[in-house]
Amino acid sequence: MNAPTAAVLVIGNEILSGRTRDVNTTTAARLLTAHGIALREARVVPDGQAAIVEAVNALRARYTYLFTSGGIGPTHDDITAAAVAKALGAPLTEHPEAVALMAAHYGDPAKLTPARRKMALVPRGARLIGNALTGAPGFALGNVFVMAGVPAIMEAMLAAALSEIPPGPEVFTATVDTTQPESAIAAALEAVQIGHAGVNIGSYPHFDAHRRRSMGVQVVIRGRDASAVEAARAAVEQAITQSTV
Amino acid sequence: MNAPTAAVLVIGNEILSGRTRDVNTTTAARLLTAHGIALREARVVPDGQAAIVEAVNALRARYTYLFTSGGIGPTHDDITAAAVAKALGAPLTEHPEAVALMAAHYGDPAKLTPARRKMALVPRGARLIGNALTGAPGFALGNVFVMAGVPAIMEAMLAAALSEIPPGPEVFTATVDTTQPESAIAAALEAVQIGHAGVNIGSYPHFDAHRRRSMGVQVVIRGRDASAVEAARAAVEQAITQSTV
Repeated sequence: MNAPTAAVLVIGNEILSGRTRDVNTTTAARLLTAHGIALREARVVPDGQAAIVEAVNALRARYTYLFTSGGIGPTHDDITAAAVAKALGAPLTEHPEAVALMAAHYGDPAKLTPARRKMALVPRGARLIGNALTGAPGFALGNVFVMAGVPAIMEAMLAAALSEIPPGPEVFTATVDTTQPESAIAAALEAVQIGHAGVNIGSYPHFDAHRRRSMGVQVVIRGRDASAVEAARAAVEQAITQSTV
Repeated sequence: MNAPTAAVLVIGNEILSGRTRDVNTTTAARLLTAHGIALREARVVPDGQAAIVEAVNALRARYTYLFTSGGIGPTHDDITAAAVAKALGAPLTEHPEAVALMAAHYGDPAKLTPARRKMALVPRGARLIGNALTGAPGFALGNVFVMAGVPAIMEAMLAAALSEIPPGPEVFTATVDTTQPESAIAAALEAVQIGHAGVNIGSYPHFDAHRRRSMGVQVVIRGRDASAVEAARAAVEQAITQSTV
């Protein structure tokens, strides 16, 4: 079985202006990896219809799943649902279950204002993605999952979405820490990577900006085969020990 | 004068696996905005040549500048310089000034090992981007700026790169805070946005995940014309006040 793949599309001017730091990409990376889905690409685009439509169509065609975050609130700059509807060629329609969810959440039907009711508009045929934090749902259509931008709500929606997606084969990880600099172990690591093509070996230095020097390296080995990861880990450990002057 | 635009390309498996949280996008967003350059898109791709080449060519063609981070160290998984060389159609060659910089940094010529010397390989014709933290430089060729992934080094390289790029027209920002929920001010905000097309108005709720409710909204007005931003700010303030029940 080929491992399922995914892309994340973060939608929001506030990320690109520097006002808000994106944390949703790293949340998605963590949850998707744990679910056996390989996150292959992440993009951030503005709250603009053309940019969203283009990115949605490029990414949904290329990966097994596309997860978007941001732009599904009640204000004028929340245009994700309409843009995704356009990308998918589905008309934007009010989802009765979404209206019912929000009516229940707000208690008083008078609180279901036109602005809030806008959050019940989804592409025709979409299924809802609930969350325990707010009344307003995300939605999914085909392989596209549309989630809120507020990090706590996004994480709840992603967990709900993943509960309905079959997990991919588990990703195994091993790490080897060394106090040596990257340059001292580079040749040894490369040789191990060449000899263990079934795993991915990454080298991540701990850089101390104050001391202006690397304080060591964490070598990370990842793969879908536990014994291959363990064999590569042992080989990395041995190679690093032999590199020590 | 049209405002210059930019994209950021973050290169690294560790971001997509969830091991490392990307902070370089938000650093770039902040510094580029302050320099009058509109960041229009950010992408994260793996340490894979095909993915890097495709993203570099798509983004350098579309925006005034492309800034990459990650993958320029001494290990086997650092393939950015070679991939950018391929994307730009320039052969990868050793830059004498980069060798000299590193030799000076390490002091002892014997410390300029083959692994470290790899960091002097750049596409032919590239100019170097120095930084005060390490001997290994980034580089630029055409409108593509290639920087390290370690956040402190990336920030130093971006500052150095921007010191040689003419600033774009200043971006002015005003913010209006309200304790009202987004839904209560949505119609008023939309009317202000329609009446002030020269600025961009964004609505950002403060969501309290513990209390499961929005604790208010920050409305952000941005534009290149200070008086237009101020006029929109005053209109937002008045509209929000009138929305108050």
